[in-house]
Amino acid sequence: MRILLQFPEGLKQHALTYAQEYERKGDEVIISAEPSYGACDIPIYEAKLLKCDKIVHFGHTKYMDIREIPVEYVIIKADVDVKGVMKEVLKKIAGKGYKKVGIITNASHLHQVSDIKEILREGGVEPFTAKGSIRCDNEAQILGCDVSALNKIRGKVECILYFGAGYFHALAPGAVEDYTLPPVLWADPYSKEVKWIDEELRRIQKKRKIALAKAYEAKTFGILVSTKIGQYGLESAHEIKRAIEKEGRKAVLICGGTFDFTSLNNFTDVQCFINTACPRLIDDQSKLRIPIINASDFWTMIRAN
Amino acid sequence: MRILLQFPEGLKQHALTYAQEYERKGDEVIISAEPSYGACDIPIYEAKLLKCDKIVHFGHTKYMDIREIPVEYVIIKADVDVKGVMKEVLKKIAGKGYKKVGIITNASHLHQVSDIKEILREGGVEPFTAKGSIRCDNEAQILGCDVSALNKIRGKVECILYFGAGYFHALAPGAVEDYTLPPVLWADPYSKEVKWIDEELRRIQKKRKIALAKAYEAKTFGILVSTKIGQYGLESAHEIKRAIEKEGRKAVLICGGTFDFTSLNNFTDVQCFINTACPRLIDDQSKLRIPIINASDFWTMIRAN
Repeated sequence: MRILLQFPEGLKQHALTYAQEYERKGDEVIISAEPSYGACDIPIYEAKLLKCDKIVHFGHTKYMDIREIPVEYVIIKADVDVKGVMKEVLKKIAGKGYKKVGIITNASHLHQVSDIKEILREGGVEPFTAKGSIRCDNEAQILGCDVSALNKIRGKVECILYFGAGYFHALAPGAVEDYTLPPVLWADPYSKEVKWIDEELRRIQKKRKIALAKAYEAKTFGILVSTKIGQYGLESAHEIKRAIEKEGRKAVLICGGTFDFTSLNNFTDVQCFINTACPRLIDDQSKLRIPIINASDFWTMIRAN
Repeated sequence: MRILLQFPEGLKQHALTYAQEYERKGDEVIISAEPSYGACDIPIYEAKLLKCDKIVHFGHTKYMDIREIPVEYVIIKADVDVKGVMKEVLKKIAGKGYKKVGIITNASHLHQVSDIKEILREGGVEPFTAKGSIRCDNEAQILGCDVSALNKIRGKVECILYFGAGYFHALAPGAVEDYTLPPVLWADPYSKEVKWIDEELRRIQKKRKIALAKAYEAKTFGILVSTKIGQYGLESAHEIKRAIEKEGRKAVLICGGTFDFTSLNNFTDVQCFINTACPRLIDDQSKLRIPIINASDFWTMIRAN
């Protein structure tokens, strides 16, 4: 069987090792080099072109029903100590006097959520979790683009604990939502760092508002449409184009997979990008010459006009 | 009709203007954001996904027969003065006492080749041109990956004139070939700069040799396979893998479109990349943590072992 393996960036370091495990079982392996930021981004086109019989996607839980080719989702369970870092978490929470704490985490720590809850309870803190949307329907699970598991407990808690490594997930509450958040504590079990990240979250939200303010001034728009299967939004892009043209401004649809920022910067006759692809694309605002706003922000802008 | 427009980087600045010309004619337009370095890279998958009726590829001549969807190739003829810069060319050539000069250029200057030849003749210099391979079969035309138009006149001339802007094409003779070149003069009609670039060409060839020397030491290889239609080389990649394993070393196949260097650098258990995709990918050696060599260089290496 020929298999296409797909890894998020943090697991690419072991790619050869994983490939050889499959080869030992008699499979033929090809690895996708493309950046993979989630299960929204399954390389169906590549798998078909390379005549693969199956895709094995590492690091994320199932997101969509894919009919074109069998897709297997493999979660690499984080093999990292919870206790040490949780001691520090309890100290930080006690320092603020909080008693009710919401927990969110990424896929690789889902098996540790019950331990985290137990440790909090032992420390006199009541833990809260919820299952998110259908895209992340495990207790406490969030995605970079979906913090519904947080939204469901938001009203009940005094602060939020994000457990896991990496800025991408830690900053999701601020990047995905733009209304007032409870304080957010980030515990990284690898670096053992535990810190309140409210300032970072507010900074993200401020950046979005600045981009939005600049977008109001733009006369020409490039509407980004993703060719990734779970990010595809052509109809949404068309609607946005019509709304822009109704206002007497100009717009063009621009498609891409993992958008290349150098290439995007070469569209010099465009003054603002509107993003219908991965909503976290706008995190890379600093790499772009012009403002980029999400489709949802665009509609807010249009309604305000 | 829904059309997918594809521009090389240098033409993306006018993308909105081009899009609006098509829209005025009643077409619906989407623009590909992906970097496009040649007619080897036609976005058939994207066009099908976006339900386009036609692809219009700007900036390069036809390279392959594509059956999946109609593809139109549009050359943007450079509208730039030839005479001024050619005066400087004649001075430089006279300074070296050369009388026989080969001409190479890119697609956008093909309509100026007869003028360039005429000016050379008037200056007492005999111009030489040839048609390249089937991939660049216009008089004097080269591609970033194909300087066959130069190879055909190599023995007859004392030096080569590359006419056109951009390092990518100017450095092609050194990047594509690794044997001794006649002196190469680069005339850029936009900046009006005219200079001998033999040192740059030798520097490229030296970098390739250094990468090759490092490759000899590697124990684990990542073989890059392109998913771009005109760069696809899965069979070649398999052959290379077998040859590596026969030597007791390890190899894995890694596929991608426009390879992302950050992602490639995350394959930390690989010690050397072997490239079966666009041969000019290795120009970006400095962006990679480990050596990258072309398939042709790999076979040289294996034979030397």
